[in-house]
Amino acid sequence: MASWLQIPKNSPFSLANIPFGIISAASSRVPAIAIGEYALNLNAFASSGGFAQLPAVQSHLSPTLNAFAALGRPVHRQVREYLQNVFRADTQFPQILKDNAALQKSALVPLSEATNHVPMQIGDYTDFYAGLNHAYNIGVLFRGHDNALQPNYKHLPVAYHGRASSVVPSGTALHRPQGQILANPAADPKVPTFSPCKKLDIELELACFISTPNDLGKPVSIDEAEDHIFGLVLMNDWSARDIQAWEYVPLGPFNAKNFGTTITPWVVLIDALEPFRATGLEPGNQESLLPYLREKKSKNCYEIPLEVELTNKGGQPTIISNSNSRNLLYSFPQMVAHHTITGCNLNTGDLLGSGTISGAEPKTQGSLLEQTNGKTPLTLADGSERMFLEDGDTIVLRGKAGTEGNYVGFGDCVGTILPPFKL
Amino acid sequence: MASWLQIPKNSPFSLANIPFGIISAASSRVPAIAIGEYALNLNAFASSGGFAQLPAVQSHLSPTLNAFAALGRPVHRQVREYLQNVFRADTQFPQILKDNAALQKSALVPLSEATNHVPMQIGDYTDFYAGLNHAYNIGVLFRGHDNALQPNYKHLPVAYHGRASSVVPSGTALHRPQGQILANPAADPKVPTFSPCKKLDIELELACFISTPNDLGKPVSIDEAEDHIFGLVLMNDWSARDIQAWEYVPLGPFNAKNFGTTITPWVVLIDALEPFRATGLEPGNQESLLPYLREKKSKNCYEIPLEVELTNKGGQPTIISNSNSRNLLYSFPQMVAHHTITGCNLNTGDLLGSGTISGAEPKTQGSLLEQTNGKTPLTLADGSERMFLEDGDTIVLRGKAGTEGNYVGFGDCVGTILPPFKL
Repeated sequence: MASWLQIPKNSPFSLANIPFGIISAASSRVPAIAIGEYALNLNAFASSGGFAQLPAVQSHLSPTLNAFAALGRPVHRQVREYLQNVFRADTQFPQILKDNAALQKSALVPLSEATNHVPMQIGDYTDFYAGLNHAYNIGVLFRGHDNALQPNYKHLPVAYHGRASSVVPSGTALHRPQGQILANPAADPKVPTFSPCKKLDIELELACFISTPNDLGKPVSIDEAEDHIFGLVLMNDWSARDIQAWEYVPLGPFNAKNFGTTITPWVVLIDALEPFRATGLEPGNQESLLPYLREKKSKNCYEIPLEVELTNKGGQPTIISNSNSRNLLYSFPQMVAHHTITGCNLNTGDLLGSGTISGAEPKTQGSLLEQTNGKTPLTLADGSERMFLEDGDTIVLRGKAGTEGNYVGFGDCVGTILPPFKL
Repeated sequence: MASWLQIPKNSPFSLANIPFGIISAASSRVPAIAIGEYALNLNAFASSGGFAQLPAVQSHLSPTLNAFAALGRPVHRQVREYLQNVFRADTQFPQILKDNAALQKSALVPLSEATNHVPMQIGDYTDFYAGLNHAYNIGVLFRGHDNALQPNYKHLPVAYHGRASSVVPSGTALHRPQGQILANPAADPKVPTFSPCKKLDIELELACFISTPNDLGKPVSIDEAEDHIFGLVLMNDWSARDIQAWEYVPLGPFNAKNFGTTITPWVVLIDALEPFRATGLEPGNQESLLPYLREKKSKNCYEIPLEVELTNKGGQPTIISNSNSRNLLYSFPQMVAHHTITGCNLNTGDLLGSGTISGAEPKTQGSLLEQTNGKTPLTLADGSERMFLEDGDTIVLRGKAGTEGNYVGFGDCVGTILPPFKL
């Protein structure tokens, strides 16, 4: 597909994508799509009759994407296809935008000038642990090769509830967290020290937003689960490993994760990812799952190359990891089915993280803990070394599926570490 | 304090209380207070000039208590004292309600006819584990007496993120959850079975709602923490023990808790509980805490007797436990300080559970797991036995501080177990 709009060949936001987000316009927040180097302000577009053919959409353009997401997948598909048509070189609707210079000027905002926001009002945020290699790598560090994966791991997508309030959009700087750590973990009796986190880490994840809700008490079946998914974003689940090590027994991570989680602001619709379906790591395992988790589709993951870049203050960017979403053992529909099997209700705007997406080889892991184990440092472009993050470090996660000119990507997921807040 | 309104001596909603909630009125939701056997519809009260003296309140009466809570503790205190005055026998404002039969008729709704709702829009729900005896009792079951408490337990209030979407008001019936359990936990290799939960349990807890928020990155100091608390409710954190046992390693409980959490609908303001401050279980431990958790007040818990009642279908109510909130090792202000020490932002309406409140003696535990360990059944009034809950069982939690005629209580926290949802 070619567009009348100039779209750089390496843009994650090709005509094949059409992701949705929320940007600032004047003093309010408005829905938008990203295309090439622009955001299209959908309120401005609608005001000029852009959605005259789709009146249901017009009344669901709000300062968050929740109302639009709640319209359901058939509507999202219809709107995406319509907007692709509007931007196509051979558009059936040239008068709407292609030949309307005034609307182009008022509604197309350069992405470099757009302020993005968390695109949805998030009710609950759940983080899964579906990255098989990550779970294995972490298991090896804690329990050795033979007992690396817990007995439940290949039977259900392990998950924990996360903190929704501190989910922030790409570009938000975060203070290094402070809390209780064991300065000398080998000591007995174990007495904690109050300290800034000394083992600040990242987690490379994908996450999905929920579109249509389910009622409390009524599970979502595996066959219907995908239709409850609005779309995907990239996510950095920042983790304070030393705080986590001390606090997490017996109820799981809490302060180690609650200080911030960064997501890309553009939601890539689930339909935009359909061409990139791929066979997962262990197709055989899928067949052994209990029926409520068993998918009819054999291709239950996506082929999306992912990368992690670290830039130290005053230094050069270094790509520290290359991974791929094929490393997830469970799909997002399986996560939805498992989450709701007890009757738990998912609401529009809920966020489900995949867990860290690591490969099996060196330089493909999605966390520093796996890459360095606090022992073998990474070497950055300027020769500096890293076990964990230092103040002033900037992390960028990137991911895009497809090929040049037709990429379906997420854009950059950026976060910089500030010094600890002065108490 | 005596009231011109007839208030039964055993009512949890004496003139000393004045808890806030949300009730249905016509087809909308309105804020209310509970007093004796009535709810006072605050919208109706305000429409007749009831808040003429407190205009700031009038514009913050919404279908949830969030806007009112965000006004902050000094305003809550002022409004409570004003409403106590309005209801006092020697009220300074007789014309407002005492001598206004028309407004009494329109604004005082019998509690037996009022429909209650979850009183706040809950952003995030966090559950702590601050019940010392509960943590010890569970620890004994899993690890024996010598290692019952984890090394971190007396240094920080252990917590995990909970599921906000399934917090329901007292009176909501819940389906027995279904999911993966180990039919034979001793077997190796461990292979799960799909089943309705066979070990459905309760957890007797208190919980607080957050009033004023803190910014991401800025911890709330222990000295300021209490002023971020709006008030308390009773909470039943229903728990599926067999689902929990299989899923919870390594990231904590998830499906075992996400199907429902029941709260009382009336928020007892933090100021109403001030007269019931008491010294906690281990005052010495408080002094050994890291400074960010150390409170100036030596009385860091409340004297609130609590009880658990179980009624089987067609049977009689049986009080199965008597406990007291003095069994909490950490206070709600300490939970707030710990929650935010990393920079985590709390929002108005966030809910913080205490953890299960168990005593040290038989018949004082806040969960069935502790009382029966699945081995020694409870005997109900009609002779039936219980290890865990059966379909049709109704649980009522109750708690009130103070003495006859001046009780400050929560009302009933009621939930009934329905059979599993038919898949």
